[in-house]
Amino acid sequence: MISVGVDIGGTNIACCIVNEEGEILEKGTVPFPRDGIPEHSVLAVGEIVSSLLAKCGFNIKDAGWIGIAVPGSIAYESGVIIDAHNLNYHDFPLKERLSELFPQTKLYIENDANAAALAEYHSGAFRGHQSGVLITLGTGVGGGAIVGGRLFTGGMKNGFELGHMVLQHDGISCNCSNVGCAETLCSASALIREGVQAMRVHPESLIAQKAEHDEGRIDAKLLFDCANAGDAIANALIDDYIRALGSLVTSIIALFDPEVIAIGGGVSNAGERLLAPLRAYVAPRAFFRRFGAIVKAEMGNDAGMFGAAMLGK
Amino acid sequence: MISVGVDIGGTNIACCIVNEEGEILEKGTVPFPRDGIPEHSVLAVGEIVSSLLAKCGFNIKDAGWIGIAVPGSIAYESGVIIDAHNLNYHDFPLKERLSELFPQTKLYIENDANAAALAEYHSGAFRGHQSGVLITLGTGVGGGAIVGGRLFTGGMKNGFELGHMVLQHDGISCNCSNVGCAETLCSASALIREGVQAMRVHPESLIAQKAEHDEGRIDAKLLFDCANAGDAIANALIDDYIRALGSLVTSIIALFDPEVIAIGGGVSNAGERLLAPLRAYVAPRAFFRRFGAIVKAEMGNDAGMFGAAMLGK
Repeated sequence: MISVGVDIGGTNIACCIVNEEGEILEKGTVPFPRDGIPEHSVLAVGEIVSSLLAKCGFNIKDAGWIGIAVPGSIAYESGVIIDAHNLNYHDFPLKERLSELFPQTKLYIENDANAAALAEYHSGAFRGHQSGVLITLGTGVGGGAIVGGRLFTGGMKNGFELGHMVLQHDGISCNCSNVGCAETLCSASALIREGVQAMRVHPESLIAQKAEHDEGRIDAKLLFDCANAGDAIANALIDDYIRALGSLVTSIIALFDPEVIAIGGGVSNAGERLLAPLRAYVAPRAFFRRFGAIVKAEMGNDAGMFGAAMLGK
Repeated sequence: MISVGVDIGGTNIACCIVNEEGEILEKGTVPFPRDGIPEHSVLAVGEIVSSLLAKCGFNIKDAGWIGIAVPGSIAYESGVIIDAHNLNYHDFPLKERLSELFPQTKLYIENDANAAALAEYHSGAFRGHQSGVLITLGTGVGGGAIVGGRLFTGGMKNGFELGHMVLQHDGISCNCSNVGCAETLCSASALIREGVQAMRVHPESLIAQKAEHDEGRIDAKLLFDCANAGDAIANALIDDYIRALGSLVTSIIALFDPEVIAIGGGVSNAGERLLAPLRAYVAPRAFFRRFGAIVKAEMGNDAGMFGAAMLGK
């Protein structure tokens, strides 16, 4: 029995065919139709699913299920996407539309961050464990949790919105209308915001010099490169960033006590320059004597679609 | 079938006998032996259990189980109390000692805050729901969570330490060695600390006048009384306190999405002076359009022992 995983993103729709052993037999992407008409993206999903199945010599009757990951909030019982802003899905009956294309096939829909955590559980950083929390450090802060070998979505199934736990209760405003959310301190955007600020205050800094080569743009990699080159300003702001991330990790330990905490997303590409000081910050501050390992996430860009393919397991 | 619940506290050992319908047939307390010898407290537990059973006309063979709530960390498989500082239990084999007194009886041991959440689930604020988070605002900040009709203790069973999630990542030091924990902002102690500070800065305030009548002592009730009497300084510091508690509640909503959030502990006696502005703070800041009700906890001082009696359910 094979399964199909689809990750619908605002830029691309990614799809994979996975066998019973959890091996990806085939994968591919198509552009997400940017015309604002949700039904067109459903057709695009249908095409890539059918074409990848055909490539492997299967047809849809061979698939045990299709799992779909979506960057948004989901009404699970109906399969309606309440809001997925990047996809222009609002109260969109995704499951119903897909079932018109694949009437005989079981369909599962899940939030993409939750799907990514499931991917880490089946084939990545949580493999061999029954619990883990994935923290994704990108434009925002996302995350998913596995507890007792199952996806943790809280009491009313809308959890787990890790980026919107508060880390600075009198902090700056977050997009979500709250203040001081983890996202305002731990996202790549937050790091870049601090980098831009540092560049203004210290136009002589290595950050400003490197940014000039790139039309004034800076990203997390540039800041880590400056830090690795010994720039004191870049090191100071990365140290601040890691302290905030450390508070996020200690909070997760106190609440979820997971066996593994995996750091993913663009910022995690900094590797040990991020993880080693993070572990050093957390160790003396964790509430429990024994607490979970802090590691890099393993599934990268495949996380959403592979996790989606695992939804029927 | 009846069950027995015991709450071992640093001042008293409380015990109750509960019938199958969840009614407390008999309850009582004995002082916790303050001689620092853990075995003596086990004997005290044995005596109150036997005497309450006898009062109801039962003997130990009628009890389906004895549940014990302890303010500390527990190695669940062995029933060893790792640390319960107020009881002077350190690596103390509580279950083994109790099973010498009650060799035929099933024994369950749980953290007292978790037991209290279970009490709210079976007979209190979470009744009729499958999820709820209890926040206890006392000397520290404690809490317990019910998710899917079961006690939530995280991946490695040491959660849920609500008081030690971070709310102010560059905040003041917490007893636990981390900084900015919820306990440093939301406990009764934190509120009192701010009250003492306000009294020093404003010796003319109503807080200072009222405290003088009470030998300079202040507590949460005095501060709420001053606020209710219209004192601006007391109102300002209570508003600050409620904002911090609001950040704790919005964090819980984002992570646990419970149907009910119940506020207990001494500070919750302020009732609607606390809850109404708390709800007003949370409503526009909660991450989900629909989120759980914010209510007063219902089980009061009985929570620990009653929840302990529910451990075998």
